[in-house]
Amino acid sequence: MREVGIIGVGMTRFKEHWDSSLRDLFVEAALKALDDAKVPMIDSIYVGSMSSGLFVEQEHIGPMFAEYLGVKNVPAIRVESACASGALAFRLGYIEVASGLSDIVLVSGVEKMTDCEDPTSALAAAADVECEAFFGATFPALYALIAKAHMDRYGTTREQLAAVSVKNHKNGLKNPDAQFQREISLDAVLNSVMIADPLTILQCSPISDGAAAIILGPLDMVRKMTDKVVKITGSGVATDTIALHSRKDVTSLDAVKLSAERAYKMANRKPKDINVCEVHDCFSIAELVTIEELGFVEKGKSGQFVVEGNTEIDGKIPINTSGGLKSKGHPVGATGIAQIIEIHKQLTGNAGERQVKDAKIGMAQNMGGTGASSVVHIMEVV
Amino acid sequence: MREVGIIGVGMTRFKEHWDSSLRDLFVEAALKALDDAKVPMIDSIYVGSMSSGLFVEQEHIGPMFAEYLGVKNVPAIRVESACASGALAFRLGYIEVASGLSDIVLVSGVEKMTDCEDPTSALAAAADVECEAFFGATFPALYALIAKAHMDRYGTTREQLAAVSVKNHKNGLKNPDAQFQREISLDAVLNSVMIADPLTILQCSPISDGAAAIILGPLDMVRKMTDKVVKITGSGVATDTIALHSRKDVTSLDAVKLSAERAYKMANRKPKDINVCEVHDCFSIAELVTIEELGFVEKGKSGQFVVEGNTEIDGKIPINTSGGLKSKGHPVGATGIAQIIEIHKQLTGNAGERQVKDAKIGMAQNMGGTGASSVVHIMEVV
Repeated sequence: MREVGIIGVGMTRFKEHWDSSLRDLFVEAALKALDDAKVPMIDSIYVGSMSSGLFVEQEHIGPMFAEYLGVKNVPAIRVESACASGALAFRLGYIEVASGLSDIVLVSGVEKMTDCEDPTSALAAAADVECEAFFGATFPALYALIAKAHMDRYGTTREQLAAVSVKNHKNGLKNPDAQFQREISLDAVLNSVMIADPLTILQCSPISDGAAAIILGPLDMVRKMTDKVVKITGSGVATDTIALHSRKDVTSLDAVKLSAERAYKMANRKPKDINVCEVHDCFSIAELVTIEELGFVEKGKSGQFVVEGNTEIDGKIPINTSGGLKSKGHPVGATGIAQIIEIHKQLTGNAGERQVKDAKIGMAQNMGGTGASSVVHIMEVV
Repeated sequence: MREVGIIGVGMTRFKEHWDSSLRDLFVEAALKALDDAKVPMIDSIYVGSMSSGLFVEQEHIGPMFAEYLGVKNVPAIRVESACASGALAFRLGYIEVASGLSDIVLVSGVEKMTDCEDPTSALAAAADVECEAFFGATFPALYALIAKAHMDRYGTTREQLAAVSVKNHKNGLKNPDAQFQREISLDAVLNSVMIADPLTILQCSPISDGAAAIILGPLDMVRKMTDKVVKITGSGVATDTIALHSRKDVTSLDAVKLSAERAYKMANRKPKDINVCEVHDCFSIAELVTIEELGFVEKGKSGQFVVEGNTEIDGKIPINTSGGLKSKGHPVGATGIAQIIEIHKQLTGNAGERQVKDAKIGMAQNMGGTGASSVVHIMEVV
């Protein structure tokens, strides 16, 4: 397999985009990435989108996007694995370049959620519709079950959960692409509207519109085109039961652990080697369980770990410097790509006020459903 | 890139499956393919599905299918490009094996269309929803426009269009997996209910349920595991404008032509080398235009070519020996995989009563929308 690197990146701001359609969002992000990469042409396109069908009644977005980007006839394929769609689009582009079949591949993610009357029902299509959603289980409810179990087993507190949102909003304030660029207090998080006990609304990622795009190429080419070369050294994917109730232990996310193990093995790295990491904090509890599964903190100790400041920008392992899904926003299909863009910014020294000092090795973890799919990538400055 | 071959195949019958859910259909096809391949384990899964979201309100089917197949934790990714989803799943599995990242990959396609109240609207999501579907243009209407233009420019007749359906039903009668296993007369086709002039209902592929699966592996491994080795020698993809009205010439399908050129070039083959071919006859006119774009017959002469018997099982270039989408059925996401299974059966001498004599090189062409995406594969006995 050929070595693969990142040539350029681009994204829309994540927010409620009332003046842009699905295709507009894609084109904006893709043009920014192409402008950043300065490549004359692309060989193929991958686009991650969870449910353009349920959100805006449009399937078949690959060729539509190629056309509106002005590269009609280029192969363009949509990839879906719920909220992990973006990272999977990245992985498939990586494999295509690594295989030697293509040189320059645009990988992207997009979602237009605000045009949908009932986005919570559309999102529920990422759960087991027959066994979960049909009986009223929404994602806030399912993640609340995980949170309750984690509190019960490990003594995780409401304050520890809320601290995740406080930290992520603090970071998002420094990110011009974030949906919410403001700090929130622990009190505000704890006393905001209860969605599914113990998760208050300020512990739930928002409904967002947005797109993100990355241009990949063979490392030899990337070396000639960029100053700071970022190589993809690890790519791991794993799946788990679609329904939460089928798991042996709901305080664990096995697919996250396994996808990380696969990525660590491929990159020949360990948790202690990672300098900066974006994780899938669709709900506060998701960030806690995930940093345990990624090996950054012992099982059950994540709440205290966050409260102690270890996941801050200047902490032991900075988590979600972008603001995470909570503050940056979560247009589901775009999230996995935007996470990797944040890591790329950190590794190339372009993260502005939220820059992690001397970041050389980064990780991005993106997941679908209640962790029925998880994708982990490791990237390194080489 | 490593050479890649087919280890095993399996599919459900295509029909109205009232007793099987989406996941049941996938599992049936996948188990048949695994049984045929006799592999102990698979490394990853690709599944093509046009719109499990709009048809049965379920997204995130990759991990669900892995779980229900009993291979939880295996990477499992859904791929979508409308009715070309199946062939794209095949292509991505091919790339993954060719890259060296995985050895044994299950590629599949599935659709459960009969549970949907309004499948025609769901299918319209493969067109440009804002510019076509919103104004009432359904796929029969769009393909009727192509047919009218072809008749006007080239003198193609209603009888020639109808002959495609007659031939495909004749073949489907010999296919135990086909939805409609009966012959239909030219008169019956011409006098059946008019859907969109000139297309009568017997020139439109049906609403179907079904799944199909193929196990791919590196050619060295395939040689040890199968008697008759079928290698993938060409894989071409191309896209076109999503809306029909944006094309310069609606009697042409540029993405079909271009995807075929790419596959021919990769395989170092020409149209005359192909012994048997499956094409995407979602409507009778689609088969006519497609065999022109694939280079089997001069532009505008396809109608006469079919009437003269050149596309029959014992003709110059047998087209849709399986019965095609018209007679075999068209569970959209499964179609691209089922086409390749038919070619595999022909190349391995397992096509029973519809066997093409001495078939050594085969082609499968799968498309989405009104040809906004097209995927062509060439396979050869080696």
